[in-house]
Amino acid sequence: MRIVFLFYDGMTALDAIGPHEILCRLPNTEVHRVAKHAGPIRTDSQLLLTAESAYSAITQADVLLIPGAGNATTLRNQPEILEWIRAIHATTTWTTSVCTGSLILGAAGILSGLRATTHWAALDRLENWGAHPTRARIVEEGKVITAAGVSAGIDMALRLCEKIAGASFAQAMQLGIEYDPAPPFDTGSPDKAHPALVDALKTRMVARFEVN
Amino acid sequence: MRIVFLFYDGMTALDAIGPHEILCRLPNTEVHRVAKHAGPIRTDSQLLLTAESAYSAITQADVLLIPGAGNATTLRNQPEILEWIRAIHATTTWTTSVCTGSLILGAAGILSGLRATTHWAALDRLENWGAHPTRARIVEEGKVITAAGVSAGIDMALRLCEKIAGASFAQAMQLGIEYDPAPPFDTGSPDKAHPALVDALKTRMVARFEVN
Repeated sequence: MRIVFLFYDGMTALDAIGPHEILCRLPNTEVHRVAKHAGPIRTDSQLLLTAESAYSAITQADVLLIPGAGNATTLRNQPEILEWIRAIHATTTWTTSVCTGSLILGAAGILSGLRATTHWAALDRLENWGAHPTRARIVEEGKVITAAGVSAGIDMALRLCEKIAGASFAQAMQLGIEYDPAPPFDTGSPDKAHPALVDALKTRMVARFEVN
Repeated sequence: MRIVFLFYDGMTALDAIGPHEILCRLPNTEVHRVAKHAGPIRTDSQLLLTAESAYSAITQADVLLIPGAGNATTLRNQPEILEWIRAIHATTTWTTSVCTGSLILGAAGILSGLRATTHWAALDRLENWGAHPTRARIVEEGKVITAAGVSAGIDMALRLCEKIAGASFAQAMQLGIEYDPAPPFDTGSPDKAHPALVDALKTRMVARFEVN
């Protein structure tokens, strides 16, 4: 099985690395980390990742994962990457995104008419691409799975593990990464956090989404 | 404030990247990703990270974070790195570890007489370094904070955020990464997973800890 992570400058590292930690441990799997060009990728936290190959070297994937970014518009202006995403999507068993990665799937035309999710602060942007914005941790529409903001990629990847390798394998994976979360606050969702906190953060984040 | 992540070949990417995604967004902070030598780091999932500088260039840190590894013995055989960890620890406000990173703190002599935690499958190994193994998501002993396996680093980093920048900031951070976890199974802890699953996974993981 071939699992392909699309990396790009400005991406959010955890969007990809959460799922990567899980999916790379599936049996009989080759994982490819690709980008426009092979080489270093500067994430939005300044952490450097590396794409081992150019995406053009990949013409098929069983699983495609698109991470999000603080400013997810970056890739939406690159028609050749969107074209590649469409072409790979035609070959996948699962096409997936984390956080604002779904806006990139949307720009590639993959979400038209589908329910989808993204980071809560960007949810209404999905309408720009004909998707039906859906507040949920994970949204499955046929072979397209979109996850909510950043940390939701971990939940999504465990669910995908179950689909690919069965519940026992996925349960062992969850135990292996000791994923028994104990968030210090009950503010991880806009439905739970104080409205003033939600409004303030949304204003800051939306300002970033507007860039270019 | 200076936050230093120690990277090394064989480390588990998510141990570091979960906390990194959070701590790098603290205000007035410089983050350093260091290793024995500046350059690429091959994690245990084959993902390449990059250390921008050699640890020898760093002589002080406000926060030090040591990630774990599938085989955490790697660094325990390198006296000069343990010596550096001890020297930095003398300058920190917080010395922290995720997963089997605590075994490295232990080897550096930092956990002697302290309660500490680590990945559940390695918990008894803490006794080798005079620590008191403690089953908890996060263990705080003065300025030393150890977190349980892999994903526990996210909880630990949010707690550390609260200590450094206050509860409101940490709550906004949790909302920003939409950390409202929805694990697909209730198997994230050995207290919850089926004993047969726990035993099988422990056997596999302990075999790795025995290497070198």
